[in-house]
Amino acid sequence: MDIPVVENVLKLNDEVAALNRQQLRERHILTLDLMGSAGCGKTALLEATLRRLGDKLHIAVIAGDLTTTRDAQRLAALCPRVVQINTGRSCHLDANQVRQALARLDLNALDLLVIENVGNLICPVGFDLGQDFKVAMFAVSEGDDKPAKHPYMVTEAAALVLNKTDLLPHVPFKMDQFRADVAYLHPRVPLLTVSALRGEIEPWLDWLLAARKKP
Amino acid sequence: MDIPVVENVLKLNDEVAALNRQQLRERHILTLDLMGSAGCGKTALLEATLRRLGDKLHIAVIAGDLTTTRDAQRLAALCPRVVQINTGRSCHLDANQVRQALARLDLNALDLLVIENVGNLICPVGFDLGQDFKVAMFAVSEGDDKPAKHPYMVTEAAALVLNKTDLLPHVPFKMDQFRADVAYLHPRVPLLTVSALRGEIEPWLDWLLAARKKP
Repeated sequence: MDIPVVENVLKLNDEVAALNRQQLRERHILTLDLMGSAGCGKTALLEATLRRLGDKLHIAVIAGDLTTTRDAQRLAALCPRVVQINTGRSCHLDANQVRQALARLDLNALDLLVIENVGNLICPVGFDLGQDFKVAMFAVSEGDDKPAKHPYMVTEAAALVLNKTDLLPHVPFKMDQFRADVAYLHPRVPLLTVSALRGEIEPWLDWLLAARKKP
Repeated sequence: MDIPVVENVLKLNDEVAALNRQQLRERHILTLDLMGSAGCGKTALLEATLRRLGDKLHIAVIAGDLTTTRDAQRLAALCPRVVQINTGRSCHLDANQVRQALARLDLNALDLLVIENVGNLICPVGFDLGQDFKVAMFAVSEGDDKPAKHPYMVTEAAALVLNKTDLLPHVPFKMDQFRADVAYLHPRVPLLTVSALRGEIEPWLDWLLAARKKP
């Protein structure tokens, strides 16, 4: 019944995403769409990233949330270029929201833009925002079955971050099962294991710096 | 643009939910819609519940997932009445999916029906399934800011389960902040702290058994 409307919405979204992508690529800004469940540590990863790279790169963050500005406030303490998007009851960001946020940033002085999507493993996957890469994030505390249960997150991601490795001694998590499910769904996707809380994010930083050098 | 369509979808959903509710209430079946993030421990809570109450009550579970039957398989080991609904890419269950699942259950011999919704803090909130109560579930590993960031989950819930208390020594989680945010959003909602993994679920069992006695 509502399929034509949904198709129109997605087509319009794709058109705006293409405009965003053009605008960002012209300025050689690496743009990432960071997707993950509520509480997987997206903001903590960005805090750790800003601490490590904030004096080397010009970084901006667009943070999506239903109602609060808590993530943006946390990030603003470490980064002068943070734009908050409140989505109300909407479960993902769309390209037009990102377009409006871009208008509030000075793109000429930027190396890296991270769009922190709304905490949700499902809805953000289907919406192109104009990013170079979608990055999927899980936490060991969510269990080893998340890739198998949320396969589209995995297949759409250019890199997969597994956070909260500091909790591995305290949770039931079979790393072999997790790796096998990821490899089955997306054989060559880089799996970056980190503890954002402890600042142990080297695999992520290495991937990020390598991704900047790609055409 | 698409608001009229959305309104029609919700109206149709509400009509089917009312049919479900009538069918379930006629048989005095307590029906819960269990909502929570992917990996918060919904299935583990139901496993622990089935271990504790499985020989006292006739319990059925309807489990929603995008693609796999992993949750249903786990629960079927403890319960003969499990129906799986695969939603594909849809981020929540709707009343019609529940209606189809009800047709596959013998409702005459049932005391309790738990509908385990798709792992998501946003989309399931807006859809009535015909339940008596919506139950919202968080885990301490997700951080203490989840009620504030997902307020509709809290305001719509008749009870709020906080799981994975066994991880409290290992994660940054301010219980006072969590409790204050919950109390601000929904002053009298019962907050049931549990460790499903350890089988420490007394507050949840007490609430469940009391809810059964309500008219």
